[in-house]
Amino acid sequence: MNVLVLGAGQLARMMALAAKPLNITIRAFDVGSNQVVDPLSTDIVFGDLNQGIEFANFITAEFEHIDHQTLALCQASGKLRPSSQAIKTGGDRRLEKALLEKCAVANAKHKIIANQADFEQALTDLSLPLILKSALAGYDGKGQWRLKDKAQAAATWADIKAFFDGGEQGVSHAVVAEQMVAFDREVSLVGVRDSQGNTQVYPLTENHHSDGVLSVSIASQADAALQAQAKDVFDRIANELNYIGVLAIEFFQVGEQLLVNEIAPRVHNSGHWTQQGADTCQFENHIRAVCDLPLGSTALVRPSAMINILGEDQVTHDILQIASTRLHWYGKSKRPGRKMGHINVSGDTKQQLAQRLVQLAELLPAAAFNELKPYVSSYQKRLSK
Amino acid sequence: MNVLVLGAGQLARMMALAAKPLNITIRAFDVGSNQVVDPLSTDIVFGDLNQGIEFANFITAEFEHIDHQTLALCQASGKLRPSSQAIKTGGDRRLEKALLEKCAVANAKHKIIANQADFEQALTDLSLPLILKSALAGYDGKGQWRLKDKAQAAATWADIKAFFDGGEQGVSHAVVAEQMVAFDREVSLVGVRDSQGNTQVYPLTENHHSDGVLSVSIASQADAALQAQAKDVFDRIANELNYIGVLAIEFFQVGEQLLVNEIAPRVHNSGHWTQQGADTCQFENHIRAVCDLPLGSTALVRPSAMINILGEDQVTHDILQIASTRLHWYGKSKRPGRKMGHINVSGDTKQQLAQRLVQLAELLPAAAFNELKPYVSSYQKRLSK
Repeated sequence: MNVLVLGAGQLARMMALAAKPLNITIRAFDVGSNQVVDPLSTDIVFGDLNQGIEFANFITAEFEHIDHQTLALCQASGKLRPSSQAIKTGGDRRLEKALLEKCAVANAKHKIIANQADFEQALTDLSLPLILKSALAGYDGKGQWRLKDKAQAAATWADIKAFFDGGEQGVSHAVVAEQMVAFDREVSLVGVRDSQGNTQVYPLTENHHSDGVLSVSIASQADAALQAQAKDVFDRIANELNYIGVLAIEFFQVGEQLLVNEIAPRVHNSGHWTQQGADTCQFENHIRAVCDLPLGSTALVRPSAMINILGEDQVTHDILQIASTRLHWYGKSKRPGRKMGHINVSGDTKQQLAQRLVQLAELLPAAAFNELKPYVSSYQKRLSK
Repeated sequence: MNVLVLGAGQLARMMALAAKPLNITIRAFDVGSNQVVDPLSTDIVFGDLNQGIEFANFITAEFEHIDHQTLALCQASGKLRPSSQAIKTGGDRRLEKALLEKCAVANAKHKIIANQADFEQALTDLSLPLILKSALAGYDGKGQWRLKDKAQAAATWADIKAFFDGGEQGVSHAVVAEQMVAFDREVSLVGVRDSQGNTQVYPLTENHHSDGVLSVSIASQADAALQAQAKDVFDRIANELNYIGVLAIEFFQVGEQLLVNEIAPRVHNSGHWTQQGADTCQFENHIRAVCDLPLGSTALVRPSAMINILGEDQVTHDILQIASTRLHWYGKSKRPGRKMGHINVSGDTKQQLAQRLVQLAELLPAAAFNELKPYVSSYQKRLSK
């Protein structure tokens, strides 16, 4: 069985590692070079996308910002899973918000802004502070603005206008303005749906972001009511999209309510802990769904966490002396802020996991892991309450 | 960091899968073709061994039957871990028996037979039945004879003599005759030792062989006294060899005593369950030891088992519907009896694991998994006693 992944980053690499024991060969389409590579060796296998499509039994994607021509070509082959529509929805906040409304799932009050009139209307309809996110551009904190005070409104609009003007020509640009949610914490749900409509979800994961980028994810047995609420949202969205594969949903938790922040039609950074904390990891489950193999159990095996390694190409090997600690490098060249790898760690209990996280935070440099220490320390304190 | 593995089979492949997230590159020397390959893509990387040695920071082996010239070349580079002496000991039952005697560890009463006089003496010194194993030839049941009755002695000697005569010229051939042990069960201990002399061992694993080939391994929390006895044997042997890496020891259990059957200076088939049942799998721990990284915890995460897939290149995907069941194919071409892959399965308890093993045995064809059903059924019965 052969699978072509659109995108040749760490997610394709980890899919390939998970797929290898199933005798499933993964090839990855590098949208930068337009070549198809072996994501493990990084050797070029095909010079163009068409050969990759020809080679594949199924096609999937590791990110949602793929140009629509490429998606159309893959969709036309009949091999793309999830569908181009699902991928596009993850890559355009306008479509995403429309989907959330259609599925009647709770999310932040928002308005789509394509011009100054929309912007003015948003200031009237929504309460400050607002967070404004580009409908199309990337993730991890790029193309975002915060508006706290009406006095900043003109300057913010000028920034957004410049962003529109600087964007790709011939594309309809917009931002989505959302009322900022005073959330208690950020959580995400990673789940998987197969072509028969079966769904399975992992336990809700608590996420800590630093400068808009995921820093730490912690998973343990979730509160049953909250988990059921999240699973209901997952099923509505995944069924509406007739989704095949792994889908991640990020939520704001406010009291006992979950508001959808955004969805990602792919394996997700907040699901990397499943490599050692869940019965079947998200990468294997994605490949199982895409290839019509039975879904694997998403049960928690033991409380586990993931720490992102950003912008660093080495960390002290002393961390490997902490039990249940594993390093996952992506083999990428060093660049400030770049996702270079992650650390997974588990514990027999939440308390043991928290203790190991604190030990890790002691060993990792605060400059590179800047909010790690206070966050894991506060997590540990919450547990002892 | 680069590691060259002598041997390019499934063990090198699984080392490569475990090493990849550590950004350690594995190349494998195929002793058949004399080429160095990427064990994941199977692409040829170097045309000869010397380039492989040059490329590597460390060299290790996935099997012990490596010609002595190759071993000498690797040993001379100063990069070989474990040492050529340790590898040779695993590949020659004469050296192995001498090591066991030197370490004063319990093993079956035996005699080394190089000629007819030795054979006659063995018949006098040892009690029947005997098992006779070639000192040098392979494993998995090849080059073995059983002698139950003195009336068969002449025929057995004729067979052994023919085996000597048919063997490689200029090599000193021998068989080791052992008094057959009326064991209660076969168990093995897989452990790891680093260059500083630290050792860690996995829980004792129960093994069931069929026609001399490993069929099923089951690991759960071992009896403490038995585990301590096995760990003591491991430490004696590993320390005597100044061993670096994973080493496996197969035992016969007779009542509460463990008799060493044989040692394997490498990752071992009976340790494959560690891929999902132990804190750190044997492949990662081997690579950690070889590369001077801290050893990972060998603690049991949950009771787990492994079933070998012999001579089959597919099994029903229905098995993937059983929770905690994972398929590991080796990407090899089909040949009768060949180790083609394995199935790992875990349970939260021994009883749950046994139940899943029984479910698997129901789904797998008895013709290819011939003793699986009666064995797992008897295992389940033992637990309920």
